[in-house]
Amino acid sequence: MTTSTRMDDRLIDVPRGLANVVVTETELSDVRGHEGFYHYRQYPATSLAETRSVEDVWRLLLDGELPTPGESASFRAEVAARRGMSAALSRILPSLVEPTPDGTRPAPLSALRAALAIEGAQRGLRPIYDLSEAERRDDLVGLAAVVPTIIAALARLAAGLEPVAPDPALGYVADYLRMIRGDEAPAEFVDALSVYLVAAIDHGFNASTFTSRVIASTGADAAACLVGGLGALSGPLHGGAPSRALDTLDAIGDPSRTDEWIAGELEAGRRIMGFGHPVYRTEDPRSALLKRVAQRFGGPRVELAVQVEERIPVLLEQLKHGRALHTNLEWYAGVVMEIAGLDRELFTSTFAAARVLGWTANVLEQARDPKIIRPSARYVGPPPVRG
Amino acid sequence: MTTSTRMDDRLIDVPRGLANVVVTETELSDVRGHEGFYHYRQYPATSLAETRSVEDVWRLLLDGELPTPGESASFRAEVAARRGMSAALSRILPSLVEPTPDGTRPAPLSALRAALAIEGAQRGLRPIYDLSEAERRDDLVGLAAVVPTIIAALARLAAGLEPVAPDPALGYVADYLRMIRGDEAPAEFVDALSVYLVAAIDHGFNASTFTSRVIASTGADAAACLVGGLGALSGPLHGGAPSRALDTLDAIGDPSRTDEWIAGELEAGRRIMGFGHPVYRTEDPRSALLKRVAQRFGGPRVELAVQVEERIPVLLEQLKHGRALHTNLEWYAGVVMEIAGLDRELFTSTFAAARVLGWTANVLEQARDPKIIRPSARYVGPPPVRG
Repeated sequence: MTTSTRMDDRLIDVPRGLANVVVTETELSDVRGHEGFYHYRQYPATSLAETRSVEDVWRLLLDGELPTPGESASFRAEVAARRGMSAALSRILPSLVEPTPDGTRPAPLSALRAALAIEGAQRGLRPIYDLSEAERRDDLVGLAAVVPTIIAALARLAAGLEPVAPDPALGYVADYLRMIRGDEAPAEFVDALSVYLVAAIDHGFNASTFTSRVIASTGADAAACLVGGLGALSGPLHGGAPSRALDTLDAIGDPSRTDEWIAGELEAGRRIMGFGHPVYRTEDPRSALLKRVAQRFGGPRVELAVQVEERIPVLLEQLKHGRALHTNLEWYAGVVMEIAGLDRELFTSTFAAARVLGWTANVLEQARDPKIIRPSARYVGPPPVRG
Repeated sequence: MTTSTRMDDRLIDVPRGLANVVVTETELSDVRGHEGFYHYRQYPATSLAETRSVEDVWRLLLDGELPTPGESASFRAEVAARRGMSAALSRILPSLVEPTPDGTRPAPLSALRAALAIEGAQRGLRPIYDLSEAERRDDLVGLAAVVPTIIAALARLAAGLEPVAPDPALGYVADYLRMIRGDEAPAEFVDALSVYLVAAIDHGFNASTFTSRVIASTGADAAACLVGGLGALSGPLHGGAPSRALDTLDAIGDPSRTDEWIAGELEAGRRIMGFGHPVYRTEDPRSALLKRVAQRFGGPRVELAVQVEERIPVLLEQLKHGRALHTNLEWYAGVVMEIAGLDRELFTSTFAAARVLGWTANVLEQARDPKIIRPSARYVGPPPVRG
């Protein structure tokens, strides 16, 4: 049995960062980068964002079909009933936003990650491979349902306010805004944020979705998968930081400074936040969608965002930059979330409140194929000295 | 620019679970499955386990060289000085082990995951890509150093005892056992556990190591990477559950029942816990190492473990099972941890206290190559209907 064959005789080389390497088949979603198109199941995601509730689309991803009106009401009620956090987490939560020794507060996404890990531990979840499909779905839905409640409570506690308990009569988005604000948000804010959230639920096999599926592949519990996804989502390269686009708009300040500012950034070789995407080679359909939402509201911020978007290709042409640069999800996402009344510190957590729904469907799908995802590395250090 | 070219025209198919797919080059370690051999840097891991402290081997993985005596003392002191948890975590920790609504307690690994996420949030860690190499190393070492303290404190709190503060005069293993027991452990227990911990620090590109590197590739902070690794490690398919091997020994009970029990399991087609490994095609070198450690102590438990190990190939031959079945890390790991005085509920967390050290070196290596790991999935659902 023992031979001198090295394991790496069989190693398979693939592009760096596993680009285009197929990890799994999926029935959930796809991104057609060259077409500027993405879909959830067989439906264009942007159409769903404009016509369906967060709960309907979440259920579509979980169960494969758009719900009938009866099913829609039933799933909405199921999610609403599970929005409350455990008594233990409620007790611990204020400690999570206390200033750290250096006087700052934990980053909202770090606090959310800790809170969700606590909630998961409290629930005594079992490994997903030990569960039936229905039990897995139950664990995942129950844990994701509490995410907006945690985000809102952390934000209020950080602001010195009492958390607001969920209201099961409200939908996902309306209750999220209410738990942050303390009172019901105007319907147009709810609608605007709903478009963003649905559009952000899933987007191909991004690094956080992949992370949650790798963890799922070991058979770990639902909390391990979702907490791991939050970890990957917090990375700057993941691209989930819509506040950076607003920072760009702040830096430009006045529309008269747009050309000068863009040219300066391009000449300095700096990346312009809110522009460019690793997959889309054309307009990001999420950007076009959220631009329409923003333009329904209008105002100086929206006008500046549109102006910058329009000037960038012109200036790239003048500077013979030789590449197209389109707005990505971040560009108008920040504008829309600001319109809906969210503080900038809430942007990434709000993105997480959408993406976690996509992870639940991905984990559920991964668990149907119980095989560990365990790639290899090529050892390139000094050869071992065997004694 | 817009064409009808599908992204998946360029998709690359690889074996299921990414088996043998090279994600990265590494200078850290390698497993030669067909040779029953693994090494950290250029040193056989089993030799290191028998001759070097946890701190020395951790430093070898981090920095690439075995420390001189002076460097060894200095790194040991650095780690010891950072073993304390934050005041915030100390306050929260008792809440993490309170019984859940169904009367059980959170699983130790779930509580550890939550605690490490809290500690990470408290430290206000920055994204690793925003840090220098020295700052990354500092965040990673500082966070991993507190893991044994958290595990011990959780175990004592769950048993109704007060946590014991770390003693910077002691080494990693001695202080871990002291913080669990409440008094200094006999030197032979420390030595036995040290062999296990060093042997378990790293082992090729396992799913938890891979998870921590995927998260690192997004640029997330050190806590996101290590908490994600803990999530993957908690999965039953990851193989980090040495208590299952003791369960097997308990089930057999008396040596006279060994043949009957094994035959029953094999005939029923059940997996025998503690036997078989996805990579090793021959003896697992970790098993041979820990068997030697266990046999230094002897006793009925060790004798039964050896007897079962010896009878399995004989019975496989008699039953014409047609495959070799060797003990893996779990088999003697459980026996050795029991010898060292650890309760079974501590086994997986103790494994984590070793593996987290390997993750720190892997995250540090990953961060030197700032490229996101973002594979693909092939969409196989109904074709989208474009409106």
